[in-house]
Amino acid sequence: MYKSEFVKPDGRALTLYGRTPVEVSSPIPAPGEAVEARPQMRWHPLRGEWVMYAAHRLNRTFLPPPEYNPLAPTHDPEHPTELPQGRYDMAVFDNRFPSLTLDAPPPDPVPGVAARPGTGKCEVVVFSQNPNGTLGGLPAEQVRLLLDVWADRTAELGRDPRLQYVLPFENRGVEVGVTLNHPHGQIYAYDHLPPVQQRALTQMRAYHAEHGRPWLEDFVRQEREAGVRVVRDEGQALSVVPPFARFTYELWVLPTRAVSRLSELEDSERDALAAVLKDALMRLDALFGVRMPYLLTVQQAPVDGQAYPEWPLRIEISPYLRAPGRMKYLAGTEQGAGEFVNDALPEQKAAELREVKHD
Amino acid sequence: MYKSEFVKPDGRALTLYGRTPVEVSSPIPAPGEAVEARPQMRWHPLRGEWVMYAAHRLNRTFLPPPEYNPLAPTHDPEHPTELPQGRYDMAVFDNRFPSLTLDAPPPDPVPGVAARPGTGKCEVVVFSQNPNGTLGGLPAEQVRLLLDVWADRTAELGRDPRLQYVLPFENRGVEVGVTLNHPHGQIYAYDHLPPVQQRALTQMRAYHAEHGRPWLEDFVRQEREAGVRVVRDEGQALSVVPPFARFTYELWVLPTRAVSRLSELEDSERDALAAVLKDALMRLDALFGVRMPYLLTVQQAPVDGQAYPEWPLRIEISPYLRAPGRMKYLAGTEQGAGEFVNDALPEQKAAELREVKHD
Repeated sequence: MYKSEFVKPDGRALTLYGRTPVEVSSPIPAPGEAVEARPQMRWHPLRGEWVMYAAHRLNRTFLPPPEYNPLAPTHDPEHPTELPQGRYDMAVFDNRFPSLTLDAPPPDPVPGVAARPGTGKCEVVVFSQNPNGTLGGLPAEQVRLLLDVWADRTAELGRDPRLQYVLPFENRGVEVGVTLNHPHGQIYAYDHLPPVQQRALTQMRAYHAEHGRPWLEDFVRQEREAGVRVVRDEGQALSVVPPFARFTYELWVLPTRAVSRLSELEDSERDALAAVLKDALMRLDALFGVRMPYLLTVQQAPVDGQAYPEWPLRIEISPYLRAPGRMKYLAGTEQGAGEFVNDALPEQKAAELREVKHD
Repeated sequence: MYKSEFVKPDGRALTLYGRTPVEVSSPIPAPGEAVEARPQMRWHPLRGEWVMYAAHRLNRTFLPPPEYNPLAPTHDPEHPTELPQGRYDMAVFDNRFPSLTLDAPPPDPVPGVAARPGTGKCEVVVFSQNPNGTLGGLPAEQVRLLLDVWADRTAELGRDPRLQYVLPFENRGVEVGVTLNHPHGQIYAYDHLPPVQQRALTQMRAYHAEHGRPWLEDFVRQEREAGVRVVRDEGQALSVVPPFARFTYELWVLPTRAVSRLSELEDSERDALAAVLKDALMRLDALFGVRMPYLLTVQQAPVDGQAYPEWPLRIEISPYLRAPGRMKYLAGTEQGAGEFVNDALPEQKAAELREVKHD
């Protein structure tokens, strides 16, 4: 992996990644003036969690005309995009409309409310120079490069002592409000451990203390023994519909050796993980013959410098279609009680996914 | 409030409620044969929560043709609906496709997974015989009746020692997958305290222990003193955009006396709460001139027979539009980390809502 770092005219960072040396052949652009972000966080006293306020975001880019794509390389200097021309395979830059920033100022005080700066970092990851592809449709070596890029961003962001947790993710589908079709993802870096990860850490620590080994080890063994929920097994990595899936076609892509971060994986393990990830995404797109809307998250251990032997690294994919044309919506029980309803058993849906043919 | 209880031909319960005595003038119908529900729950070892599996639900009624409305009174015995003809104002019946049932059988064991019966109850609440109205558009006395019906259902379900928590809610809007336009809501009754309520209870107990009084008392006083986030104040009830709102136009409708359940409210308090609720919903519909898609939940204390002086009764309304035509989707940070981004400050949005004119 090769990388080159740049600063955009508006001060934001840009990193270009390549499988071959990076070469840039036009000026580093920015699509407009610097946006002043003053994000803040407020404490929700009943949910017991921080809520982020990013009041400058409401006017962000929304379904722009097809001729303007801010994630493509700039070809017309009159209409600069986020990226230059050149030889590179992937790009990461600071989000122009961030929910969190490293220089967020203290907010105006609100009596009775705990408020603080929205400290953190939001990055955009462009998966390819090709505006029409999909993550699953990229060549295997490009999916592998993305694993390396995620690992690199996690390490880079983790070096900042203000950042405690790094979450790479991809939201895909106009069905879930994604405004840009160009294949891309995002990274949120938080200055604290978010509630979902806090909860997982507590659960996994208890498991590790009780059984003397990481949960992931037992999980992989049980799923291989059961067989019924494994969709693809490449030896060093596999995909599985977890027996406690919340979404109908939920798929977890995970290494079979219990590690807590992508950076701990060997070369051959990353190749296997990339192959299984590509297979999982292509199955989901082939399942109903439509681009499956989904949320993909990379769930790694916190980046506070400590070791987390109990933390199970995995890529969680939550597809939003539960049948052709039928979206899963999070409604009363999911949002009002935190309790999911899944309309199908994981065993049945894993069998369907195994039968899917794709290129 | 008057009520009459019936049993449908397929064994499900039906209760009709009226502001005047209930009279039924046609047989009690059911729209088809009994559906065998075998819901189960499985433990999610990382989220630390139960996931419900209701495999019989995937084929439930979905956007039926407009001429068939299962929530209207039956007029053609060849096409029975859920309700009879007669004089009544509201109806509650067991959901034909429940996610939880009181007689769920033990599930087949799954090695390595904690699974148990999906014990609980799911009810449908029909707000009016009029298929075209909206909850906010109903006469004030009908909204008041709904508060009485919710209180009655909570008490009735709470009498079953297997049930620990009762959540009345309304999902509204085709945007969020609501398949029937006839104004209606649902009630989920769980055999355990769900995660959102468990978390709130922990937080509110800590507050009560620290301050010696319920959080709601301080909250109402602070909001009245600040003034900027209160949308409507009727003395015994008010609506407010909470300072820690997760949704752009989130509105909480609450009594100004700290109580934990609807049943504890006096007549005049229920009238005030109904008036503020109606006002809140009409404001949301008038805001952009379109029916606002939303989730409404009634957050009461557990029904296990204990007193919960620290629990704040409130009706939470989470509207899904953050601007005209712009939905809020729960994406990477909300679902992958449990951390919400709100694009606007509550103070600004409360001011907008106060200025809305409606009938």
